[in-house]
Amino acid sequence: VGRPRVAFQGELGAYSEEAVRARWGDAAEPVPARTCDDVCRLVARGDAAYGVLAVENTIAGSVTATCDALAAAPGVRAVGEVVLPIHHCVLAVPGATLGGLAALESHPVALAQCGRFLAEHPHLEARAAYDTAGAARAVAAAGDPRRAALAGRAAAARFGLAVLAAAVEDRPDNQTRFYVVAPAGRPAGAPDDAPDALPNDSPGGPARTALLAVPPNAPGALVRLLEPFAAAGLNLSAIESRPTGDPWAYRFFLEVEHAAGDPALDRALGQARGAAGDLRVLGTFARAASAA
Amino acid sequence: VGRPRVAFQGELGAYSEEAVRARWGDAAEPVPARTCDDVCRLVARGDAAYGVLAVENTIAGSVTATCDALAAAPGVRAVGEVVLPIHHCVLAVPGATLGGLAALESHPVALAQCGRFLAEHPHLEARAAYDTAGAARAVAAAGDPRRAALAGRAAAARFGLAVLAAAVEDRPDNQTRFYVVAPAGRPAGAPDDAPDALPNDSPGGPARTALLAVPPNAPGALVRLLEPFAAAGLNLSAIESRPTGDPWAYRFFLEVEHAAGDPALDRALGQARGAAGDLRVLGTFARAASAA
Repeated sequence: VGRPRVAFQGELGAYSEEAVRARWGDAAEPVPARTCDDVCRLVARGDAAYGVLAVENTIAGSVTATCDALAAAPGVRAVGEVVLPIHHCVLAVPGATLGGLAALESHPVALAQCGRFLAEHPHLEARAAYDTAGAARAVAAAGDPRRAALAGRAAAARFGLAVLAAAVEDRPDNQTRFYVVAPAGRPAGAPDDAPDALPNDSPGGPARTALLAVPPNAPGALVRLLEPFAAAGLNLSAIESRPTGDPWAYRFFLEVEHAAGDPALDRALGQARGAAGDLRVLGTFARAASAA
Repeated sequence: VGRPRVAFQGELGAYSEEAVRARWGDAAEPVPARTCDDVCRLVARGDAAYGVLAVENTIAGSVTATCDALAAAPGVRAVGEVVLPIHHCVLAVPGATLGGLAALESHPVALAQCGRFLAEHPHLEARAAYDTAGAARAVAAAGDPRRAALAGRAAAARFGLAVLAAAVEDRPDNQTRFYVVAPAGRPAGAPDDAPDALPNDSPGGPARTALLAVPPNAPGALVRLLEPFAAAGLNLSAIESRPTGDPWAYRFFLEVEHAAGDPALDRALGQARGAAGDLRVLGTFARAASAA
């Protein structure tokens, strides 16, 4: 049947492609997609067996495009997560030297994560680019030894660039958490969830449930939604208000930590559903260990 | 004494500059700053009397850079808010026509807000740029009648561009809310808060208090922080978890709606402070009316 196709947001050489390789090795075919919505579309209509979407970075925070794409895609569910250490490298054409560089190009968030390196190399002008892998592609295409890209090691291999400096980020514990998404119709733990079965395969093990709620816009509505989880002793690992598009109206993206198969979760979900009106479970899956 | 200097994030022609003009008219001098942190620095050291920072767009959601800049700037406080309707225009060099365009360049969020217009004009290739005003500047500098920028009307005047189409956004009620920030040391309602005094000048009027909290990472900690506001019947208009930089540790940015001078707010703040450990009031100010 060939390797499963796994869609990711970004272009080849992006950190999201590294997440696909971290999870599947060479057993999957990474399929680049322009947006998070495109990833969900590919998965929902079966053009990809899985999708990988960044949900949170320890320095930059939540990836709201992922929350919004999941909210708009009832045809997909979260079946797992991957945590990837993020180590930025300075990439340039072979023969270039650190001293001979004039510009360092990357996504503004990546540049901001390397403030110390930039301060120590004042001859480098930081230039904003649309994304990290795109900056690497542009540097390779230009062939100019004065230009460098700040991107992952995978981008160096992809575009034939040399690594002039590695792990230049201010915080070595910088990491990104990704969701693995699958078609909503496919049962959890199906045979094609190989190489490792994802959800709830170890009763009592650390698990996470992602939720989308639209509580009424009234005093105390959010607290009534959250109280059942607090009463059950379950920790909330994320909470984000996201606009619905109607001015000043919101949906909430939540994550609850629990033990796999814990009946307290189902009770809390039932009570929260009574308070929230509209509560959608995006998925329950095994928690990945921190990468640091 | 001359016009007060008001710092804003972005370049001249940005929507944030429009917010300065909406609040002060010609009575202030808009001062562009590269980042939200730069705006806070200019205000904290007195190089600008005020700053203007986008905090929320009704389609795109919270502006996390503003939350983070305020968290890192104890020297500033929020003293007011401005709500600006956001109407995107198609701008090109004089003589260009809609039919003769090949590309529409702008910030990806602005392009995403005009999906219908792009679908109706399939000959236009959407191209990502770093920001709306920067796209307008680049189009003006290139002088190429096949290129257009998607930006505000202020950018047309700034760069001598023609408005080929106006209000092309999918939702005409698209709007952005901005904070007005001032040095933390200057008392609220000081004489230089003119032209209109900002905070709590009308007891009982609609007000908002912005908060920053770092609750302990334990089950129920967030609920204990929020409960006092719910018990007092006060609505939360925003809640965002933002990373502290330490992996999987968070601070929370909150907004509470209340009547100006309501003693219930002070009681709730006291109780929340007991639950949150670390609770900072970023500011209390009059709520602006919705622009739609």
